[in-house]
Amino acid sequence: MRSGIVTLLTDFGVQEAYVGVMKGVLHARSSALRAVVDLTHEVAPQDVEQARFHLENAWHWFPEGSVHVVVVDPGVGTDRAIAVAEHGGHVFVAPDNGLMRTLLDPTDEVHRLDLSRYPVPSATFHGRDLFAPAAAELVDGARPRDLGPRIELELAPERRNEAAADGSVAGRVVHVDRFGNLITDIAASVVGADPARCIAEIAGLRVRMVAAYGAAEPGDLLALVDSYGAVEIAVRDGDAARRLGVGRGAPVKLVLEP
Amino acid sequence: MRSGIVTLLTDFGVQEAYVGVMKGVLHARSSALRAVVDLTHEVAPQDVEQARFHLENAWHWFPEGSVHVVVVDPGVGTDRAIAVAEHGGHVFVAPDNGLMRTLLDPTDEVHRLDLSRYPVPSATFHGRDLFAPAAAELVDGARPRDLGPRIELELAPERRNEAAADGSVAGRVVHVDRFGNLITDIAASVVGADPARCIAEIAGLRVRMVAAYGAAEPGDLLALVDSYGAVEIAVRDGDAARRLGVGRGAPVKLVLEP
Amino acid sequence: MRSGIVTLLTDFGVQEAYVGVMKGVLHARSSALRAVVDLTHEVAPQDVEQARFHLENAWHWFPEGSVHVVVVDPGVGTDRAIAVAEHGGHVFVAPDNGLMRTLLDPTDEVHRLDLSRYPVPSATFHGRDLFAPAAAELVDGARPRDLGPRIELELAPERRNEAAADGSVAGRVVHVDRFGNLITDIAASVVGADPARCIAEIAGLRVRMVAAYGAAEPGDLLALVDSYGAVEIAVRDGDAARRLGVGRGAPVKLVLEP
Repeated sequence: MRSGIVTLLTDFGVQEAYVGVMKGVLHARSSALRAVVDLTHEVAPQDVEQARFHLENAWHWFPEGSVHVVVVDPGVGTDRAIAVAEHGGHVFVAPDNGLMRTLLDPTDEVHRLDLSRYPVPSATFHGRDLFAPAAAELVDGARPRDLGPRIELELAPERRNEAAADGSVAGRVVHVDRFGNLITDIAASVVGADPARCIAEIAGLRVRMVAAYGAAEPGDLLALVDSYGAVEIAVRDGDAARRLGVGRGAPVKLVLEP
Repeated sequence: MRSGIVTLLTDFGVQEAYVGVMKGVLHARSSALRAVVDLTHEVAPQDVEQARFHLENAWHWFPEGSVHVVVVDPGVGTDRAIAVAEHGGHVFVAPDNGLMRTLLDPTDEVHRLDLSRYPVPSATFHGRDLFAPAAAELVDGARPRDLGPRIELELAPERRNEAAADGSVAGRVVHVDRFGNLITDIAASVVGADPARCIAEIAGLRVRMVAAYGAAEPGDLLALVDSYGAVEIAVRDGDAARRLGVGRGAPVKLVLEP
Repeated sequence: MRSGIVTLLTDFGVQEAYVGVMKGVLHARSSALRAVVDLTHEVAPQDVEQARFHLENAWHWFPEGSVHVVVVDPGVGTDRAIAVAEHGGHVFVAPDNGLMRTLLDPTDEVHRLDLSRYPVPSATFHGRDLFAPAAAELVDGARPRDLGPRIELELAPERRNEAAADGSVAGRVVHVDRFGNLITDIAASVVGADPARCIAEIAGLRVRMVAAYGAAEPGDLLALVDSYGAVEIAVRDGDAARRLGVGRGAPVKLVLEP
């Protein structure tokens, strides 16, 4: 069963009419479409890793049977596959470039979109010429297997952040949001019931964990469990990435006091 | 009766997927939802006054029975109330921080969202965890009183701009738009049928009132009745806020010539 | 037959609530509305030519019977006509300022919106007061002729790019996108099956044509047939407008090698 919802996640921006045109194609080709929802179109150009982060944190908030389309696609115009997959009752259409490597399970079926189903696409706008037509078919009830042969994607599930012998947990920054907040891959479950027991170490500094932004003074460096369910390093009313001079990939260590 | 329309007004921006996720929750939890309309997500961070202005000028253009959700919420994570109110046949969900102080009448019933209806929210994203679920229930027919106990909000209706003995009317700038136009709280009704009779005084200057932008030369300072039904100070093809060095709160006086 | 789809193309930006309010009016006044799709609201202020480009390249991707509303309108508040036209099974509402001069055929019927159908509009926001109410009627089945008397628009179809005696084709840059790519009015059909035979001349430079961005090295100047079906001059991962110091209107020549 499909929900009639399609989400779009691209690096197209909204200054040109590209996103609008994709929606036109969806409306022109689907009869069951209820709504198209923008996740964001402000992914940094060709930043697959940023798109992966947004996709992974957003899809499960949508109704079962939604179709999620990601067009962050440095390989457009090459022969990279367009992958169509089902996972957790949702359907995904994305280039085979690692976007879904942490999302899919090894048991999920993935299919390669058979391009011969559609007219010859432009060299530069597969969102309009291939992704949107495929999504329209999926909204109207097609299964991934109806759209092309089975393929295997290279998967790399996020490693679990397990405690070391000294009780600390090592992780890294996986996303820097537009306010300069540093979102890590250390899960809320590591922190447990008492955040005050935890210290985050980053960029040579020790940062105390609090329950909410409001518990810190403006300008204070703090750590908290954020809305992604992850440990986040932030500056209240400020920019932690700039303050600490760190970005995506920076190592973080969470130390649990006894 | 509900229209099936939900509007969203936030300071989230559109670079992250926060707004998209709120829409996902709305679609997942409501069966009567017809469309979600963005008012704007570019309210300056935590600028309650700017959001109040947009809400007050936008809601009445929507069909009766629409649900208007405002998440500009410096108090997120504290115990500030989330207010649910009905006014003029529309429903509003907003933090209790003054956002609705000029919108509601003393006779409007306001209810405090009972958080125990929902799973424990994150500390930082109540838009997703509380506002959207509440809005979904309201779209599907719940009444504000179904969602929590009655409370009283502090209201402060906009004062009327009444003429002084000398025929002048005092007001202030209540909004600066992205072009630097200065929107005041002096109503069109004060101006009456003959704008040419009026002079606006601001920043020590006297500005003649015209019927439309087109009646001034490029670069000219002018005053006119704008689309908010208010007196506005503008520079044709220019930025009045920068030209005059004034912003929100600046005093304005409208002088009616005999 | 109408599709229930309305597209919006404006220079309003999304920082204020103007676009949201237009959608409110559409939902309040139409019973057949299915979805409102944003083409873009980031047209440079009053840049009619940019809006013309986006309209012309976007409308035909939408389902037949869609209503396309363009509000890029330097003449707002003057007595310029608001034109309502039908073309190719779609309906268009736009100010009479050249926006549709390359879109419409001489045989298309154009009507002038009769303003007496609506309350007296504001001086500055005809998108809300006139364009949206007219679009709502059109979505619900009104024909252009129902909304006002017939008028003639000045049309100027794009000239064909015909080859000169020496085999070259002259054109010009018609759009600069946000990445600095230079889109020309030289059609793909001129290039034919073998792009490698073509050289684009612009700003005194000779640029070789390739099949896709990926065929050039980062930083390389290149020409290709883009998703508009036009010859485009680009710098891979760079900004061609800045590199060449040229903009809209710049002459381009395509030379076909024997």
